[in-house]
Amino acid sequence: MIVPGFQAAGAAAGIKKQGGLDLALIVAEAPAAAAGVFTSNRVKAAPVLLSRERLRSGRLQAILVNSGNANACTGPEGMEAARETTRQAAELLALPEALVVPASTGVIGQPLPVARFREALPDLVARLDPEGLTEVARAIMTTDTRPKTTHLTDRVAGRPVTVAGVAKGAGMIHPDMATMLAFVFTDLKIAPKLLRRCLKDAVGRTFNRISIDGDTSTNDTVLVLASGRAGNTLLKEDSHAVEPFRRLLTQVLEDLATQVVADGEGVTRVYRVEVRGAATPGEARRAAATVATSPLVKTAMRGADVNWGRILAALGRSGARFDPARVEVAIGGRQIVRAGQGLGEAAEAQAREAILAGPFTVAIDLHRGDAADHYLTGDLTEDYIRINASYRS
Amino acid sequence: MIVPGFQAAGAAAGIKKQGGLDLALIVAEAPAAAAGVFTSNRVKAAPVLLSRERLRSGRLQAILVNSGNANACTGPEGMEAARETTRQAAELLALPEALVVPASTGVIGQPLPVARFREALPDLVARLDPEGLTEVARAIMTTDTRPKTTHLTDRVAGRPVTVAGVAKGAGMIHPDMATMLAFVFTDLKIAPKLLRRCLKDAVGRTFNRISIDGDTSTNDTVLVLASGRAGNTLLKEDSHAVEPFRRLLTQVLEDLATQVVADGEGVTRVYRVEVRGAATPGEARRAAATVATSPLVKTAMRGADVNWGRILAALGRSGARFDPARVEVAIGGRQIVRAGQGLGEAAEAQAREAILAGPFTVAIDLHRGDAADHYLTGDLTEDYIRINASYRS
Repeated sequence: MIVPGFQAAGAAAGIKKQGGLDLALIVAEAPAAAAGVFTSNRVKAAPVLLSRERLRSGRLQAILVNSGNANACTGPEGMEAARETTRQAAELLALPEALVVPASTGVIGQPLPVARFREALPDLVARLDPEGLTEVARAIMTTDTRPKTTHLTDRVAGRPVTVAGVAKGAGMIHPDMATMLAFVFTDLKIAPKLLRRCLKDAVGRTFNRISIDGDTSTNDTVLVLASGRAGNTLLKEDSHAVEPFRRLLTQVLEDLATQVVADGEGVTRVYRVEVRGAATPGEARRAAATVATSPLVKTAMRGADVNWGRILAALGRSGARFDPARVEVAIGGRQIVRAGQGLGEAAEAQAREAILAGPFTVAIDLHRGDAADHYLTGDLTEDYIRINASYRS
Repeated sequence: MIVPGFQAAGAAAGIKKQGGLDLALIVAEAPAAAAGVFTSNRVKAAPVLLSRERLRSGRLQAILVNSGNANACTGPEGMEAARETTRQAAELLALPEALVVPASTGVIGQPLPVARFREALPDLVARLDPEGLTEVARAIMTTDTRPKTTHLTDRVAGRPVTVAGVAKGAGMIHPDMATMLAFVFTDLKIAPKLLRRCLKDAVGRTFNRISIDGDTSTNDTVLVLASGRAGNTLLKEDSHAVEPFRRLLTQVLEDLATQVVADGEGVTRVYRVEVRGAATPGEARRAAATVATSPLVKTAMRGADVNWGRILAALGRSGARFDPARVEVAIGGRQIVRAGQGLGEAAEAQAREAILAGPFTVAIDLHRGDAADHYLTGDLTEDYIRINASYRS
């Protein structure tokens, strides 16, 4: 997985208690146009605060990311640790410190082991490689069971342009992001402001429409760096090539977001909740989110139980206005509720087949207005409990 | 458990698939002052709609309640079934139909088996007994593992007054109530309007401050009936005896609500989330609710893991305004977070002991204002999943 203009490497620095790759470095050959979207949680980790600050210039050249320790709720010492580790990397790379951003994921509230960074960094820099992005995908995993990468190439502004990304997810996945890191790289030449607009739009359609457990984290970060190596003329706001790039970027984020849900803690079934016919876009989103995050709906899906009463009960508490006697629900294309009432066992048996068969859609029509929205989510299983009841021990 | 003026009985009517008591009748010897509070869910079950309508008069004489079928999302037929079953009971009791209310809990979306009511009712009426309330507590159980009853006597308006209640809970427990039924009986003589005000106040402090899974249901109902048999002069708005009664009623509801949480689906640990120092009462409530319903906090409690980072992350997404660097958290009286940072392993070990020891409090100070609120909740366990993934099968 190569993106012209970028090199990367991962290392086992001893930050994760259980060992394994836990530190990674991605470096652009020159200052890249950069944009980021961060957690909306009021409690923000030190690396989030520092990255946000350094992103103001619209230019970055390196990302230093670790797993095993979130460097969150660590006070002024945590902020200094974030600065110190990026300073170490900047020195070894002979770059201005302001062009290097940190990112962290893992346990909250424990001091970042700065010495481990110092020990591991020289070798990490020495091993930087254009093929290194797949190693990054593995180094950022926490309770993830598989690395998440995606790589697309398409014509943008008359040139073949690559957009590739890595992500980590697992628990605390919820709109307005979660313990979720995603790094996306492209060789497109683009103005930072435009890159930022495209990123915000794409995150809104993808990462902010997924949910594992309704919890959001202190560390969520999506960064995109553009090296400009594709050879196109600089992409600006009014270019007709903006739309193809926006689509390509959205596709990459959508693919990563789907991988994050599918590998959500304990998830065995992935499903998309689609709401239409809502009175307002806000109500459409709330209705979709409430159904997608309902523990009773999630556990019903776990049991492949076509328990549409729980779906209606979730809609009923969502705040969306609708007449219960007009609601329609379909699962996997099979209608199971019409005019607010169940269509019987044969319909439910077919819907159950769809649940058992794999990714499926729960389609809801509120018959109240024209607004629509959706969420991608997964079932809630015994394994979610097992993973989270023992995360730190 | 006797409340002067009331008789009750339970029966196995064959409504529950698995058998057992599933129908109960409570009858007052004369029309009683009555008040009710119902689910805020937009999808309301037929018995909720009918009870609300019949409660307008402020007088009731009988409650007919079944488990095993919620009679929710059952359309006009469900409404007719609710009317028909209360009509049957009213005829056998020789009462006006308008003085009998229905209540149902169980599976959503299946027709109420009216014929089973008809078969069981004559014997149920014949067996009405002043000691019958404990049988009611058993007849309304669904996934509850134990019946919930409470019985208090205190002096009100110069007379010994009894307030007793039965409740059922288990899943779908969340503020603004849940698949939760509670019936409270008293021999106090009180005006219906005042009874209603006391009930709303007491529910706000008790049942609307508990949460199992954040889901709310279509059937929640709290009813209180006052027979007037205590012999006091009619309690009115301006009486100094209102406060003692309000306290007594609140105590009964608090006791029932605590039993409901302790017997929540899969719950092994009960804890109270207390937030103080919030900017506004609304923010205090949201902060307490968000911590109380966070799956990551709940699973941490399951593992007796003093994972205060998850508590801070939940506060951070609650919408409450605060400075993360000023937050304090204590568990079981042991402070574990000061100025937004952890106090180390010794403190956490003591907090862990408190979690293991039994009911405990998670006390949070946001240091932002003067508002406070609380929630009572329980941990999230593998059993919750097991129970809910297989509820209908």
